[in-house]
Amino acid sequence: MNSFQETRDQTSKWNVSCSQRAKNTFNPIRNFVQNMAVKPNPEKSPIRLSVGDPTEFGNLVIPRQAVNQLSENILSGKYNGYTMSFGTLEARKAIADYFSSRECPIQPQDVLLTCGTAGAIELILSAIGDEGKVLLVPKPGFPLFQTIASSLGMKTKSYRLKQEDNWQVDLTDLASQVDVDTVAIIVNNPSNPCGSVYTKQHLQDILNVAEKCKVPIIADEVYANMCFDGIPFYSVASQSRNVPVISLGSISKLFAAPGWRLGWLIVHDRHHILLNAGVVQCLHQLTMRMLVPSSPIQSVVPTLFSEPCRKEQSLIIEQLEHNANTAYPLLKNIPGLRCTKPQGALYMFIHLDLNILSFENDVEFTESLWKEESVFVIPGSCFGWNGAVRIVLNAPGPIITEACHRIQSFCERHLCLA
Amino acid sequence: MNSFQETRDQTSKWNVSCSQRAKNTFNPIRNFVQNMAVKPNPEKSPIRLSVGDPTEFGNLVIPRQAVNQLSENILSGKYNGYTMSFGTLEARKAIADYFSSRECPIQPQDVLLTCGTAGAIELILSAIGDEGKVLLVPKPGFPLFQTIASSLGMKTKSYRLKQEDNWQVDLTDLASQVDVDTVAIIVNNPSNPCGSVYTKQHLQDILNVAEKCKVPIIADEVYANMCFDGIPFYSVASQSRNVPVISLGSISKLFAAPGWRLGWLIVHDRHHILLNAGVVQCLHQLTMRMLVPSSPIQSVVPTLFSEPCRKEQSLIIEQLEHNANTAYPLLKNIPGLRCTKPQGALYMFIHLDLNILSFENDVEFTESLWKEESVFVIPGSCFGWNGAVRIVLNAPGPIITEACHRIQSFCERHLCLA
Repeated sequence: MNSFQETRDQTSKWNVSCSQRAKNTFNPIRNFVQNMAVKPNPEKSPIRLSVGDPTEFGNLVIPRQAVNQLSENILSGKYNGYTMSFGTLEARKAIADYFSSRECPIQPQDVLLTCGTAGAIELILSAIGDEGKVLLVPKPGFPLFQTIASSLGMKTKSYRLKQEDNWQVDLTDLASQVDVDTVAIIVNNPSNPCGSVYTKQHLQDILNVAEKCKVPIIADEVYANMCFDGIPFYSVASQSRNVPVISLGSISKLFAAPGWRLGWLIVHDRHHILLNAGVVQCLHQLTMRMLVPSSPIQSVVPTLFSEPCRKEQSLIIEQLEHNANTAYPLLKNIPGLRCTKPQGALYMFIHLDLNILSFENDVEFTESLWKEESVFVIPGSCFGWNGAVRIVLNAPGPIITEACHRIQSFCERHLCLA
Repeated sequence: MNSFQETRDQTSKWNVSCSQRAKNTFNPIRNFVQNMAVKPNPEKSPIRLSVGDPTEFGNLVIPRQAVNQLSENILSGKYNGYTMSFGTLEARKAIADYFSSRECPIQPQDVLLTCGTAGAIELILSAIGDEGKVLLVPKPGFPLFQTIASSLGMKTKSYRLKQEDNWQVDLTDLASQVDVDTVAIIVNNPSNPCGSVYTKQHLQDILNVAEKCKVPIIADEVYANMCFDGIPFYSVASQSRNVPVISLGSISKLFAAPGWRLGWLIVHDRHHILLNAGVVQCLHQLTMRMLVPSSPIQSVVPTLFSEPCRKEQSLIIEQLEHNANTAYPLLKNIPGLRCTKPQGALYMFIHLDLNILSFENDVEFTESLWKEESVFVIPGSCFGWNGAVRIVLNAPGPIITEACHRIQSFCERHLCLA
């Protein structure tokens, strides 16, 4: 026994520690949803417009051919073994082909498969950020970047999105935030929670800031192509001439398969900036931890991106568009609320005027709405923006309508009498 | 523009960094397998006894009922959404019930689901170890603990397994390694790469060391119940009265489904030592990063652990036992080799006498064996033990026999002429 052990033997205290990393890991959405203590109104059927899960109501479904193919692949017994740590060539090729364009060609070796988008965020942040490095995130924005960055000991600073300007990036604010520790700028388009879609010009403006500051962009494009009313989608990479871009995506929203846990990361590195800095090799080394998506799910990726499934996928987008066009007129004139018409993604972000609504904050609004009207939304503070709520547009039209009506009578009941 | 940006604008250097974390992430097995440059002998059919993948040869298969059930669950469309971040109650209950015993009861809330065993290793190490903390690992041992620990900035120290004593733990060495920074002892039973299975008494001896030093045990029990020739399996937790134990497992080897990427972590914490230290809460917070296994795969866990599937699972073990009993007599008398009869798991670890074999080291032996005999094994140095190779016992009997014959003629050809 060494001297340390002699001391241990006489103490009752176990050598058990919690990492700072774990203490720093906090996901406000999951925490809110998994720990909600308030009960809904038993007299009204619950309507959960909280988690961005397209499968919640059964109306948005995975393209049938992919489901059948997956079932067949399972029965064939051919897809049960380990794959390469960054995914099969077939799956990576299907993704590369789908997102390739003339101005932005993608090779299978540029694609790495991950355990959902969460895995892609974990992978890229693990590769580029040591303790103390800074990630710039949009505000409001999807909090998982912050959750994982803090978990890794990184810092986040936020740049403002302009509510008054359809949630576009405040370019001056963005530029002013960059400093020597900044390792990447997160650009989320179409936006969760804002439902906004950026124009070509706006993307170029953002890229100009990144190029001036010489900071790469991580493009959260989980909602790629999910745009409404004929608004076109442009990827950040398609507009970049010099800025290295890592784009993240998944089948979760695109094909209504969040539980399948398959995401990816695409390296757009025209001038080999990331390659020469060693980032590409780091990404590959990190995949050898083997947090890779399930092999049967990988096997069905080529089917998901095939023509028939893409056609079915457009039905998902049509339904979301219909819901956006239903919800917006119903909500926009409710006293105490202010909202922008969603242009894409799965969400509507609603500003609460707490001067005329009788709530202290968005959490109180959310809890009361659940308790009184059985409508579950997420407070804006989970997205770094106090005094708002996010609703998910995933329900069938009549349920969206019903939810909007309930929100209306709720707000009317809770107006401050001036 | 701030002053930092004015400087940036004039430089051509991008603000791109690689994390130390990524540079520290190295998986010797994956690296060896994914980057093998040597080609096999074109005149001999390749026999890959390298990766511990039970599905490699098609002879070891997932229980049929589970495959059918998974296919049905996929077609039902009911299992496509997000689950709780630590897995569904149904799956956790099935695992809790299977591993429960009178002396060691397990509740569903003690179980957290992960993306394979790799995910379980990543989760527990992330929860307990900050930078500089030390993990004690067996030598030889499965290198993924070291890969992930280094990735997290933790250190590993190894304790010796005694080859001369059927690869039991050198208890004196184990005790001497513990110091104030040690956060856990990894105990792997049945052992990868050794194929050894510990007796009840030996587990109690290991637990005594842990209790004296007041250090928790992480039990890598991925090969639980996979024992040969009537040798019984005892879990570490079943023998522990006071030592907190975190046991790790997966369906990868137990049910021949490594590509399904579903593992778990079970917290055995009789005296609430881990709970009171905050470890249990940290584990839950870390799951909120959403690196959770795929929902359809989770849905089939209750079927996998049902009686009919467990019966089919015993056929997997019978085949492995048969292979162990085939390979051992064929290899034990080959000049230059020395081996112990496998008692369980999926492996045989073979000592190379480099005094009488004409190779510098185990890597050279492995590459030449692949080049000349088209038999792919893994060098012992990947497991922290130079001068050995690991073979996987997953092939059909005749292929195992063929591989052993090829190894024999290879060794005979490469004997040093003294």
